[in-house]
Amino acid sequence: MSVREDAPVRLRARVEYDGTDFAGYQAQPGKRTVQGELEAALARLNGGVRIRVDGAGRTDAGVHALGQVIAFTWPGRLPVAELGRAVSALVPADVAVHDLRRASAGFHPRFAARYREYRYTVWNGPHSPLRERFALGVRDPLDIAAMARAGSALVGRHDFSAFGAVDRQPVRTLHWVRVRRAGSVVTIDVAADAFIRQMVRRIVASLLEVGRGSMAETAVGEALASRRPALNGAVAPAHGLCLRRVVLGRGPGTDRSETDEQRQDL
Amino acid sequence: MSVREDAPVRLRARVEYDGTDFAGYQAQPGKRTVQGELEAALARLNGGVRIRVDGAGRTDAGVHALGQVIAFTWPGRLPVAELGRAVSALVPADVAVHDLRRASAGFHPRFAARYREYRYTVWNGPHSPLRERFALGVRDPLDIAAMARAGSALVGRHDFSAFGAVDRQPVRTLHWVRVRRAGSVVTIDVAADAFIRQMVRRIVASLLEVGRGSMAETAVGEALASRRPALNGAVAPAHGLCLRRVVLGRGPGTDRSETDEQRQDL
Repeated sequence: MSVREDAPVRLRARVEYDGTDFAGYQAQPGKRTVQGELEAALARLNGGVRIRVDGAGRTDAGVHALGQVIAFTWPGRLPVAELGRAVSALVPADVAVHDLRRASAGFHPRFAARYREYRYTVWNGPHSPLRERFALGVRDPLDIAAMARAGSALVGRHDFSAFGAVDRQPVRTLHWVRVRRAGSVVTIDVAADAFIRQMVRRIVASLLEVGRGSMAETAVGEALASRRPALNGAVAPAHGLCLRRVVLGRGPGTDRSETDEQRQDL
Repeated sequence: MSVREDAPVRLRARVEYDGTDFAGYQAQPGKRTVQGELEAALARLNGGVRIRVDGAGRTDAGVHALGQVIAFTWPGRLPVAELGRAVSALVPADVAVHDLRRASAGFHPRFAARYREYRYTVWNGPHSPLRERFALGVRDPLDIAAMARAGSALVGRHDFSAFGAVDRQPVRTLHWVRVRRAGSVVTIDVAADAFIRQMVRRIVASLLEVGRGSMAETAVGEALASRRPALNGAVAPAHGLCLRRVVLGRGPGTDRSETDEQRQDL
């Protein structure tokens, strides 16, 4: 890693961010985005010339990430180890770049991702400023077992039009929905090969209604089959959602060992 | 509690806050403080007339609380249960008022406090935006056992001038210092009858130097005995500190059952 690289090199990293003050991952003119901050830091290290940063998932405004995966092509003026330290020093405090390393040429995190894991966190208790920065506060009692049963109806390969913004290709494979309680903290973990926009937050909105007892367990599977927006398109707030992990292992530039390392990262 | 109260009544509550955007607990002209926000909310419910809110501990700017205890005298225009809901609705989102209830006349949380428990949290790993909002990031490896041994030298009744801002009465009784690790999270719990200003954060600053190996374990006890500022008065950052609990049971207006209830609150 300390050898000087003079040819362009493809690099990847795990990126963590507190999404509170970002308009999402993807660069947008005039808005503060994670991609924009990463590209600004890299441009400062590259004589002002922009370098495009690809991400595995386009998280929405306010959504956090512990395991976003990014990649970019570095012209090769700094060794990788130095570049990692320099980028970390230049990005703002609500972003962190972990484990910067070489990737194969052609590696793109979106296409290399085998599946993505999101976690939605609920603080199921009295209003708690210290617990609700990264969790949705819900005061009503929640029936966790009912939520888990309702969620299980979504597992498998389905047209998820009922649980996502309009998408040309709404078929996704959902690997699991796990609903757990630890004291007042309820977590809803969802993994899929890929997600339609707002899909996790729309699933969560329905599961919370099931947990409160105001929606039948069976209504979740019925909404899926109908392909019409569940709960009139209700979306759970962004600040409870976190992209926890992107498991690689598909497409160019990935292999089993990269997948295993990625697993150890989190 | 739903009976209308027409005479002035002494009330107490547990208060939680995210200290990030506060200039501390105590009211100060022109600054955003927890006491100021509580008093503003109560004044709105009291025809604009200010009601003084007493707290058990004057936490500094940036310090959080899960178990601050407050008390105030309410003129009696609203039943207690309604008042609790109304105050909760009027305070900003980074403050929460829990378990508002009647206290004996003359109850003052500062004098009723038998001891206070603070927790200092350290994220001992690579920079992590999601973990460092309420924890100090420390990248160097920390020797937890050495920190625990050094902390044990402080337990007991001592003059704590070495670990606090100048105070007319620097003698305090420290009940325990507990240093624990759970993965990358290191917690330092300190309980005392009362604290000099900045005392926990100055103790933590020294323990972290011991943990890093750049200060001898024995130097902590030696600093205590010298009564001269340890580490030239170094203070750990405020955002890692949280007032976890105030255990009542001393002075007017408290009894064993109040103490037990208070224990269950957290």
